Amino acid sequence: MEIEQVCPADIEKRSFEIITELLGEQQPPTETAHIVKRVIHTTADLDYAHAMYFSENAAQVLSQTLAQGATVVTDTQMALSGINKKALATFGGQVCCFMADEDVASQAKERGVTRASVSMEKAAFLPGPLIFAIGNAPTALLRLEELIREGKITPKLVIGVPVGFVNVIQSKERIMAAGVPCIVARGRKGGSNVAAAIVNAGLYHLIRKE
Amino acid sequence: MEIEQVCPADIEKRSFEIITELLGEQQPPTETAHIVKRVIHTTADLDYAHAMYFSENAAQVLSQTLAQGATVVTDTQMALSGINKKALATFGGQVCCFMADEDVASQAKERGVTRASVSMEKAAFLPGPLIFAIGNAPTALLRLEELIREGKITPKLVIGVPVGFVNVIQSKERIMAAGVPCIVARGRKGGSNVAAAIVNAGLYHLIRKE
Repeated sequence: MEIEQVCPADIEKRSFEIITELLGEQQPPTETAHIVKRVIHTTADLDYAHAMYFSENAAQVLSQTLAQGATVVTDTQMALSGINKKALATFGGQVCCFMADEDVASQAKERGVTRASVSMEKAAFLPGPLIFAIGNAPTALLRLEELIREGKITPKLVIGVPVGFVNVIQSKERIMAAGVPCIVARGRKGGSNVAAAIVNAGLYHLIRKE
Repeated sequence: MEIEQVCPADIEKRSFEIITELLGEQQPPTETAHIVKRVIHTTADLDYAHAMYFSENAAQVLSQTLAQGATVVTDTQMALSGINKKALATFGGQVCCFMADEDVASQAKERGVTRASVSMEKAAFLPGPLIFAIGNAPTALLRLEELIREGKITPKLVIGVPVGFVNVIQSKERIMAAGVPCIVARGRKGGSNVAAAIVNAGLYHLIRKE
């Protein structure tokens, strides 16, 4: 195959054109297209065109919350690393992840639960507005759903895209039924890259509108 | 769906059991199984069972090079973030990424090429043994292939798993034809998470054998 000549500044634009072509008649609705297409851009996986679930107005909630200067909580350093922190800071937002914290590790060990689960409890003490971007651990999403149900935390939005084989589908089903605004990749797929892509999609959408 | 009760320490083991079950009669060869399964563990995408390409003995080369204390060069901070740096350091290895370097950004702008491409040139000055883990930018992989062809760099192994729609397939075809030991995800799929997973698979395989 021949190399396509595209100047660096146009690679992303050309990628989105190709994604739109490939989606053909399966274009996502206008309100969510920037998110679905950025997830496909990140994964090259067209399955996300069908797998992405948005609770009512969730894409708008994402943009509006980011515009207010949100604290985005991730369950991996990788997701934290993938989020455009400069763009986030433009709106007064920040990102945090407690997975590497020593108190989280020691509590998790003592209680026989995952660090992801304990890191959600720690996040409950953060000032809002909060967005949770869970791209790895279903146990984080499950604990988060419990904390929401118990009224201990009220996130503006939950991005529920953990990946894997143990309780991943279950954790997504629960968060979709929790009544919290959410964006979910149904099924087993997802990832830290997908979680970061969704946050970035919201940020770039905001910046473009300004 | 009911929540499966699995204690935190066993989640990964259980995940790999499920992956083995799901692969059925399409089990990867023993030498590469730890890598292919970890990529599937990271993505929940069974397509990788067919997509992964290993040049002769590439899985062994990965382990052997990591055991020597390799410098792993990534093309994203996300891949750097996902690599188990503690495990890497056990063998005297380190990871580096030049994408955020100011000199890389300014040179890229001046020459009208990508930062990924310039960051490969910068990596050519690193002492070996070198492993390149390219999970994002096809332009990184294309430039790397040129540098190899020109004899300016001799990596022990190239992990070629960029993701996307512009020159991704082409970049992988070129690196597979370059005569360098390589591990590639054929097609459009890949990612920083996949690049990190492959390095980690090599590390955990080494640790298990010790």
